[in-house]
Amino acid sequence: MGVEVSIGRGKVARVAYGFDDVALVPAAQMVDPDDVDVKLQIGELVLEIPILASAMDAVVDVRLAVLMSRLGGLAVLNLEGLQTRYEAPEEAIERIVRAPAEEVVGVLQEVYREPIKEELVYKRVKEVKELGGRLGVASTPANAERLLLIAMEAGADVAVIQSTVTTVRYVSSRREPLNWKSIREAIRAPLLVGNCVTYEAAVELMEAGADGILVGVGPGAACTTRQVIGVGVPQITAIADVASAREDFLKRSNRYVVVIADGGMRTGGDIAKAIAAGADGVMIGSPIACAEEAPGKGYHWGMAAPHPGLPRGTRVKVPYRAPLETILFGPARREDGTQNLVGALKLSMATCGARNIKEMQNVQMVVAPAIQSEGKLLQMRGSK
Amino acid sequence: MGVEVSIGRGKVARVAYGFDDVALVPAAQMVDPDDVDVKLQIGELVLEIPILASAMDAVVDVRLAVLMSRLGGLAVLNLEGLQTRYEAPEEAIERIVRAPAEEVVGVLQEVYREPIKEELVYKRVKEVKELGGRLGVASTPANAERLLLIAMEAGADVAVIQSTVTTVRYVSSRREPLNWKSIREAIRAPLLVGNCVTYEAAVELMEAGADGILVGVGPGAACTTRQVIGVGVPQITAIADVASAREDFLKRSNRYVVVIADGGMRTGGDIAKAIAAGADGVMIGSPIACAEEAPGKGYHWGMAAPHPGLPRGTRVKVPYRAPLETILFGPARREDGTQNLVGALKLSMATCGARNIKEMQNVQMVVAPAIQSEGKLLQMRGSK
Amino acid sequence: MGVEVSIGRGKVARVAYGFDDVALVPAAQMVDPDDVDVKLQIGELVLEIPILASAMDAVVDVRLAVLMSRLGGLAVLNLEGLQTRYEAPEEAIERIVRAPAEEVVGVLQEVYREPIKEELVYKRVKEVKELGGRLGVASTPANAERLLLIAMEAGADVAVIQSTVTTVRYVSSRREPLNWKSIREAIRAPLLVGNCVTYEAAVELMEAGADGILVGVGPGAACTTRQVIGVGVPQITAIADVASAREDFLKRSNRYVVVIADGGMRTGGDIAKAIAAGADGVMIGSPIACAEEAPGKGYHWGMAAPHPGLPRGTRVKVPYRAPLETILFGPARREDGTQNLVGALKLSMATCGARNIKEMQNVQMVVAPAIQSEGKLLQMRGSK
Amino acid sequence: MGVEVSIGRGKVARVAYGFDDVALVPAAQMVDPDDVDVKLQIGELVLEIPILASAMDAVVDVRLAVLMSRLGGLAVLNLEGLQTRYEAPEEAIERIVRAPAEEVVGVLQEVYREPIKEELVYKRVKEVKELGGRLGVASTPANAERLLLIAMEAGADVAVIQSTVTTVRYVSSRREPLNWKSIREAIRAPLLVGNCVTYEAAVELMEAGADGILVGVGPGAACTTRQVIGVGVPQITAIADVASAREDFLKRSNRYVVVIADGGMRTGGDIAKAIAAGADGVMIGSPIACAEEAPGKGYHWGMAAPHPGLPRGTRVKVPYRAPLETILFGPARREDGTQNLVGALKLSMATCGARNIKEMQNVQMVVAPAIQSEGKLLQMRGSK
Repeated sequence: MGVEVSIGRGKVARVAYGFDDVALVPAAQMVDPDDVDVKLQIGELVLEIPILASAMDAVVDVRLAVLMSRLGGLAVLNLEGLQTRYEAPEEAIERIVRAPAEEVVGVLQEVYREPIKEELVYKRVKEVKELGGRLGVASTPANAERLLLIAMEAGADVAVIQSTVTTVRYVSSRREPLNWKSIREAIRAPLLVGNCVTYEAAVELMEAGADGILVGVGPGAACTTRQVIGVGVPQITAIADVASAREDFLKRSNRYVVVIADGGMRTGGDIAKAIAAGADGVMIGSPIACAEEAPGKGYHWGMAAPHPGLPRGTRVKVPYRAPLETILFGPARREDGTQNLVGALKLSMATCGARNIKEMQNVQMVVAPAIQSEGKLLQMRGSK
Repeated sequence: MGVEVSIGRGKVARVAYGFDDVALVPAAQMVDPDDVDVKLQIGELVLEIPILASAMDAVVDVRLAVLMSRLGGLAVLNLEGLQTRYEAPEEAIERIVRAPAEEVVGVLQEVYREPIKEELVYKRVKEVKELGGRLGVASTPANAERLLLIAMEAGADVAVIQSTVTTVRYVSSRREPLNWKSIREAIRAPLLVGNCVTYEAAVELMEAGADGILVGVGPGAACTTRQVIGVGVPQITAIADVASAREDFLKRSNRYVVVIADGGMRTGGDIAKAIAAGADGVMIGSPIACAEEAPGKGYHWGMAAPHPGLPRGTRVKVPYRAPLETILFGPARREDGTQNLVGALKLSMATCGARNIKEMQNVQMVVAPAIQSEGKLLQMRGSK
Repeated sequence: MGVEVSIGRGKVARVAYGFDDVALVPAAQMVDPDDVDVKLQIGELVLEIPILASAMDAVVDVRLAVLMSRLGGLAVLNLEGLQTRYEAPEEAIERIVRAPAEEVVGVLQEVYREPIKEELVYKRVKEVKELGGRLGVASTPANAERLLLIAMEAGADVAVIQSTVTTVRYVSSRREPLNWKSIREAIRAPLLVGNCVTYEAAVELMEAGADGILVGVGPGAACTTRQVIGVGVPQITAIADVASAREDFLKRSNRYVVVIADGGMRTGGDIAKAIAAGADGVMIGSPIACAEEAPGKGYHWGMAAPHPGLPRGTRVKVPYRAPLETILFGPARREDGTQNLVGALKLSMATCGARNIKEMQNVQMVVAPAIQSEGKLLQMRGSK
Repeated sequence: MGVEVSIGRGKVARVAYGFDDVALVPAAQMVDPDDVDVKLQIGELVLEIPILASAMDAVVDVRLAVLMSRLGGLAVLNLEGLQTRYEAPEEAIERIVRAPAEEVVGVLQEVYREPIKEELVYKRVKEVKELGGRLGVASTPANAERLLLIAMEAGADVAVIQSTVTTVRYVSSRREPLNWKSIREAIRAPLLVGNCVTYEAAVELMEAGADGILVGVGPGAACTTRQVIGVGVPQITAIADVASAREDFLKRSNRYVVVIADGGMRTGGDIAKAIAAGADGVMIGSPIACAEEAPGKGYHWGMAAPHPGLPRGTRVKVPYRAPLETILFGPARREDGTQNLVGALKLSMATCGARNIKEMQNVQMVVAPAIQSEGKLLQMRGSK
C-alpha cells in the first residue's frame, strides 16, 4: 500500500510520484516497434490508438471529433461547454481568445453564463454521427441524467460522467445525489466515470457499473486545482492505485474495467509512463489543443477556469500548432516529444520489450527526478 | 515522533514538511460544500470563519478590524506597531511605502523608533469597539503586562502574546521573565500565545493557561527568520506536533486549546492543508495585505523587519489588490487560489469528505512535491 | 540490488542516481597527481587516456580523429553520419549550422536523407590511417554487417555497434535480427556494444562477445530520448549496474569487458564520478564538440536529432571554443571544469587516494544534491 | 555512521546534508541573548567571537587583520598570496579587479606567477604585530616548513596548514611529504590543519598534533572544486563527522581539538547551523570580502582560482559593501542575514536555549529543504 512516512506526530502520509519523478527501464529483449499493438478496448468498442481527446472546449468540437475517430482515437465532447451553449460557438471562443490576459478570468466567467441548450446537445452529436465520426460525450454528475440521455439518443458512442472529483457516495442536506443504478441502466453504451485518484473510490465506481475510470485530480497544464484547494495525487501513484483496484475487481467480478489516465501528459514519454503505471489508455487535452484543427485557435483553458466563484485554471497559449495527424503519428518536426505521440509510445514499448498495452503495464520503472538533467539540457539550449 | 535520519556521525534530525511538500487526498465519500461548517471556537468566542488577520501594520488597522469581524473573522492589532506609536499612522506608512528599495530597511528602523503611547493603545481598541467590531490585540511578552491590560480594559475581545519564539521558561541574568500566572489571571478574555513549533513548548504554554497556540516560526512571505538565524520548522510538521500536544493535553486536563497556524499560507489550498495537519484555524498576513481596505497601501512588511539591530524581513509589494470580501468569499477573479479563500476551503473539505474542521483534521495526505507540476504550469503560462 | 520504493499499489521502482546527485569523498591517504595512471585497455589496445570521442557528426571527422589519437585517446567515426553520406560533408554541416532555430529539425531530417556510400566508409577510415591515426567506427545493428566489415578492411582499430538501446535479443515479425555470432567472428578488432543500462542486458552483450559495453540511454546534452519516449536510467546507477555485470562475468568467464560511460558528462568532475561508479573509461560528445578542431563549427547535435519520424535531440550552440589539447590537458582558461579534463580526473583520483582506474572504481561517494550549492554560486556570479 | 543507500548494484553511499538542507529547532527554554557566550578557545588563545577570516587575498591584509583582532576575531593571512608576492599588492589587486570578465582567469594566473618573497612573509606579520593585532598565517603543506617558521619567528599567533584537501598520509614517487612530527615540534603556537571532511582523516590530523581542524572541501561561494573534480562533502555532514572524531579523540587523548567550519556560510543562520552540527567556530571568506576594509575592493576570488593548470574558482563581485563592524555586530541594514553575524548567532543560540558554543553543539535540527519557502519569498520580492 505504499511507503508511509511520518510528517508530524500522529500524522503519516504516503509518498506519491508523478510523471517527472520516474523513468522507464529498457528491457533485455527489444521488440520491433512495427510489431507493437496499442489497441484499447472499452466495452465492445475497439480503438486503434489508446488516446482520447479531453472534453474541453479548446480541444473538441464536431470537426475535431470526426478527425479524431478517423485517426483511430476517440474525442469526448463536453456537453456543458460552449458547443451546447451557443449555436455559433466560434464567436464565444473568439471573445475568450481576444481577451487581454488580465481580464480573461472575467471573460470566461461571462461567456459560460449562457445556459446549456438541450437541442444543441442533440444537434452536436448528430453532426458528428452524420459525418461518420465516433463520439464520446461528457456531463457532470448533476446534469448526467438530463444531458447524457439526450446525447445517447442522438447516437453517442461512449458516455462520460466527469467532474473534478467524482464519487458514488455524496452527502448533501439539500441536493439529491446521482442515482447510479438508474443512469447505468439507461445508458447502453460504454460508460466512463471520473475523476478519481484512490483505490477505494475507484472500486465503488466500478461496482456502480463504470466501464472505465478516469484517473487524475489536478494534474493538467490548464488546471490549478492543487494550488487552489490543495487537493491532488500525482499521477503515477494514482494510476497504479486505480489499476490495482481494476485487477482486484476483475478477480471478484470477472469484468475488466479500463483505466484512463486523464491529465498532466505533454509528451509521448508521459503517455508511455502512464501506461507503464497501469493505465489502459490516456485522455489528453493540452497536446491536442495544439492541433490546427482544434477549436481553441491556439489557446487552451481548463473546464474549471470559468467557474463563477472559484476558477481553477486559466487560458494559456499553446506552444505551437500542427496538424492533428502530425501530433499523433508524425513525422515530428519538434524534438521535445510533443509530436508523433503514437510513434513515441510504440518505440517506448518496443524498447521496454512490450508487445501490447497489457505487457507495457508491467515494465520496470526507476525513480529518477527529471529536473537536473533537463536543467543541463536547457542550459545548453539557452545559447541556441 | 517522526522519521529520524542520520545527518552525520552522532547527529540525527527529523525530516520536516511544509505546505508545498504535501497534498490532500480526495475521499470516497464527498460532502456538499454548502453543508460544510468552518466555524472556529476560541474559549467562548465563536468565529464564523476560521481566519484571523495577522498583527501586522500592513494588515490590520481600525477599519480593517471592523470589516474583518463583520465578515465573520477576527483581526489582531499589533499593540507595538505604528497604530500605537503615531496619532496619524497613515503618514508613517506613507514614508515606508515611498522609500526606495535600497533604503527601506533604514526607513523602517527609523519609523519604528517612535515610542509606543499607552493612550493610543486604549484609543485604537475603543475605536474598533465603537464601530461594532471584534478585536484581538497582540503584544510581545516583554510588554504584555503593560499593554494588554490597557487594551483589555478598553474592551478587546482576544489577547495575544506573541514573539518570533515564545516559551514559558526564559533564562536571563538581567531581565525578569513574564509572570505567566499573574497575566493569565488578569486577562479574562481568551488568550492566544505563540509562536511555537514543538510539542514540548506547546504543552508548557497550554499548562500556563493559553487558550490557543500560534504555530509558525519563520514561514511567512515577509519574514526571513530562517535565513537570518537558521531557526524554523516547516509548517505541516510543526502544526501536527502542536496538534498532538493539544490532544494529549485535552486528555489530561479536559481543556481544548485551539491551534492556529500562523504564517506561510498564500492560498486556500495552503489553509486547507494547515487544517488537515491539525490546525483549528489560521492567522494570515500576506493574503490580507492584498485587501483594498488593508492599511499597507499595496505593500507588506514583517514585524521583525524594523528591528534595530537584526532586521528579519523586508517590505514587499503585494501582487494585486481586491476587496477583502472578494479575498475571503469571492467570486474570485484570479485562478491562483489567492481569492475566495473560504469557498476554496469549503470545497477542499467537501472533496475530502469533511463536514467540519474536526473531521478535516483527519483527512489523508500524500507527500508530493509541488515544484515540478508547477514548473510545467508556469512553462505553459510563460507563453500567455 | 538497490533501494526499491513503492510508487503505488503493487508497483515498486528502484531509486536511481545521476552525476549531479552524488559527490566523491576525499581519502585519508592522498596520492601525488603526477603518479596517477589513467590508462584504459580495450582488448589489446591501450589508450593513454580513458576518453573516447563520441560517434557524432559535430564531434568526429578525419582531422579530429587523427588529433585525438595523437593525444592518447580514441575517436569513433559514425559510419552512418555525414562523413559517409557526402563526399564534402563540410557543406552539409554548413547547412545545419546556418539553419534558423525554428527550421533546424527539418533541415537535419533533409540533410540526413542522402544515402550512405560504402566507398566513403572505406575512404574515411583510410584517410585516418594514412595520417597515422587510430580510429573507432560505429554502426547501428541494422547496418553492422555491411558497414563495419568494410571499415575493418580499411584498417579501423575498434568496432562499435551502437543504437539508442541495443540488446542481443530482438523480436520482429518482419526483420532479421543481427547475427551476433557471425559478426563477432568477422571482426578481429575490439568490439564495443551499446547502449545499455541494465545488468541483464549487459551480461547478454558480454556473452555475445562484446569487449566493451557503452552505458547510457538518454543522458546526453544533445539528446531528448527520456523526454520523448520516457526511457532512461540515470548514469551513476546504470554504470554501477553494468560494472557489477562486468565483475560477475569476469568471475565466470575470466574475460574482462570494459565499461564505457557514454553521455551526460560535461566536466572533469562528471568523468571522475563515472569512473568512481565503476566505469573503465568514458565516451564524451558535448565537451569535444567545443574543440576548435571539431567538425561542428561551434554547434552540436545528437545522432537521433535527424530521425525522420521521431527526432530525439536538437542542434545546440557550444558554450565556447578552445583547442582540443586545452580541453583535454589544459591549462584551463575556464573555471567551470570543462577544460583540462585529464588534469581534473588525475587530481580527483589523487584526492580520493586512487593510483589507477581500478582503484578509483572503489572510492567512496556521498549522495549530495548539487542544486543548492550551485544555486548559491550562481547567485553570487550573477553580479559579476 | 549515517544512512547508507544503494546507488547501484554493489555501490552504497551515505546521504550527506548541507546548510540549506537543515534548520534549527527552537527550544522549550529560551535564553536571554545578552547572556549568550560565543567565545572560542584555540590552545591557549581565547577569541571573543568564534569567527576567523579566511586566508584569501580579497579578504585579509594587514589592515583587515588588525581590525579583525580588535573586534575579537582572528584573521588568517595567506602566506602564498599577493601580500607575500608583491611589495605593493594593491596594484596586483587592481589588475584583477579591472580585468574584463572573459579574461579574468588568465589575469589571475598571470598575477600569481610572481614568486613568493620570504622577506615579505616576515614583513607582513611584523606589520600586524606592530599595530597591535593578532594574526594567523596559512601555508600549503608543500611550503609549510619554509614559510610558517619565518612567520612564527615574526610573531604570528596561529599557524595554519591548509590546502583543498590535506591528509597526514601522502604517497608520492617524486616528492617528499611533509614531516608532521618536525613541523609540529617547530611551531609553538596553536596549529590549525585542513581541509578535511571525514572522520578518519580528521583523527589522523589530530594524532599528528593539530590543535584545530578546518572542515570543508569545495563548499565556498568562490570555489568550484566540486564541479571541476567532483569531490566534496556537504558541510553539515562533514562537520558532524569531524566533530565526532574530536569527541572520540578527546576521550582517548584528553586533548580538545577545535573544529572550524570553513566555507559555504553566507549568513548568521549558516554560522549557527555550522555550530549546531558540531563546530567550535567558523572561518568565513565571502561575508568578510564585503567589508569596506577588505583588500578585495568589492571583489572576491578563491585561492584555487589562479591555479595555472586547473583553476577552480573565479572572481565574483560582492553583493554589497559595509564596515566590518557592521557585518559582525550590526546594526544590520540588510534583512538577508549577511550583517550582524554575531548578533544573529547569539539570537539563534538564545532561541535554541544554548548559553554557549558547547550547548549549541547539541541543539535539535530538522531536515527541511530551504528551496521552496525561499522560492515563495523571492516570488513576492520580485514585485518589489
